Amino acid sequence: MLSKQKKESCSWFDAHYSDSVMLSLQIKKHIHSEQSPFQKIDVFDSIDFGRVLVLDNIINVAERDEFIYHEMLSHVPLFVHPNPENVLVVGGGDGGTIRESLKHSTVQKAYLVEIDSKVVEVSKKFFPKLSKGLNDQRVAVHYEDAAKFIQSGKNEFDVIMIDSTDPIGAGEKLFGQTFYRNCFDALKSDGIVTAQSESPFFDPDIVGALYKIAKNVFPIVRMYIAFMPSYVGGIWSFIYCSKKYYPVENLKVQRFNQTTFDTKYYNTEIHTASFCLPTFIKKQFDV
Amino acid sequence: MLSKQKKESCSWFDAHYSDSVMLSLQIKKHIHSEQSPFQKIDVFDSIDFGRVLVLDNIINVAERDEFIYHEMLSHVPLFVHPNPENVLVVGGGDGGTIRESLKHSTVQKAYLVEIDSKVVEVSKKFFPKLSKGLNDQRVAVHYEDAAKFIQSGKNEFDVIMIDSTDPIGAGEKLFGQTFYRNCFDALKSDGIVTAQSESPFFDPDIVGALYKIAKNVFPIVRMYIAFMPSYVGGIWSFIYCSKKYYPVENLKVQRFNQTTFDTKYYNTEIHTASFCLPTFIKKQFDV
Repeated sequence: MLSKQKKESCSWFDAHYSDSVMLSLQIKKHIHSEQSPFQKIDVFDSIDFGRVLVLDNIINVAERDEFIYHEMLSHVPLFVHPNPENVLVVGGGDGGTIRESLKHSTVQKAYLVEIDSKVVEVSKKFFPKLSKGLNDQRVAVHYEDAAKFIQSGKNEFDVIMIDSTDPIGAGEKLFGQTFYRNCFDALKSDGIVTAQSESPFFDPDIVGALYKIAKNVFPIVRMYIAFMPSYVGGIWSFIYCSKKYYPVENLKVQRFNQTTFDTKYYNTEIHTASFCLPTFIKKQFDV
Repeated sequence: MLSKQKKESCSWFDAHYSDSVMLSLQIKKHIHSEQSPFQKIDVFDSIDFGRVLVLDNIINVAERDEFIYHEMLSHVPLFVHPNPENVLVVGGGDGGTIRESLKHSTVQKAYLVEIDSKVVEVSKKFFPKLSKGLNDQRVAVHYEDAAKFIQSGKNEFDVIMIDSTDPIGAGEKLFGQTFYRNCFDALKSDGIVTAQSESPFFDPDIVGALYKIAKNVFPIVRMYIAFMPSYVGGIWSFIYCSKKYYPVENLKVQRFNQTTFDTKYYNTEIHTASFCLPTFIKKQFDV
């Protein structure tokens, strides 16, 4: 960490993690700001993380490291399921999880259920590399509350990926037992759910509560982790919930080796390694 | 990441990673500040990371997550070497790497070579949990330039752990080929070196240069990674250099399972997983 002097004359965006920790990014330009019915949406061009999508003052997506989050949320379940055809992305209006999911040639239909159409609009305008998949003919975008949408489908999806904001405001229901129960019902008999599950370092209570809920619903529940430099703390957790397939034992290494698409973070060693947890996490969450 | 409002009336410590990224910690108390002949030394009590040792305005050690760095720098080589008796810690005046090394009952002699006696003094005064091993009878502390010290020993050490600051000022020589060549000579015929090797995300040039140098000297060179929340970016790399033993294949799982001491981050699954690298790192550094 090479120390340099702060340029007081520059613009900074302060991504608060809590009252008492923040990641501050120097900003070249504040290129968009609006208040949707659901949240405040800002777009900044930052020096170190490229273009950054900020929802309610929290970094949602940074161009420079979004590949990590989106690859790990999607390829982990999609390389375990033997034939993922129908997939659902909950939230994820930026389009990154859809983009990665569509790389799998088995996927015939991908639903995106995003409560805030403005996020999709902003992503299409300012984040073309993220949103490019949203116009694919295999994709159906629904602007509605995922907690309601999920009730209408039974035995329908192979994989559900919960690409939610934090459990405040619109995102709160997506961390509840009713929602996980409805996801279970919406999955086929061998379906898999993955979700971003917050920071085990900074928000252990949220993480712990979510795992308790998931274990009440799914027979197979595991935590996996990835590095996310733009999220304060760097360590980010994901939850893997499955009716039938184990995340490491049932990984389709051969299918990955035969794929023709590129990944920048994900590979089959990382897949397995991401389920190996530090001792303090194993002890704290009993996962 | 739950957003909260910044309390402007509070004190903050800004850990600059570069001109344009910083991690800011709210501070309860600035409890020590001095200028040693080598660097500025500050100690803060922070809200989220506990007591923090800051060298030249860079976070060196934070009480809350120091266990990750120190466990990964030490237990990785010490659980690969079949019988580590004589070990050397380069830098590391806070004592954390010595503390972890002494947990191995095979270790008969542990040398600490720290250029700045003030760091040891401050650690003994303000970080008793870190420095407690420094008074152990197996430990010999030398206050001198490690680049000079290393020239005097030949065929002497089983494991060398380079717990350096960043490659500026006093730490710069510890990233050079002469130093690595001298470490090679100071090791026994089956010796291992590990070193902190900076952030592959933010400082790829420094990381790349170090790996090139190490590969010129050692037959076996690998990168391994760990989460470090208090270091901006969260992802931290370590270098493993060895004359004989491979880091994963030669891991002594049974010895770990028989140890009676606790670890908070390290376990044998994490050991192996930490050598599994994201695709962008594998491609960038050819490791």
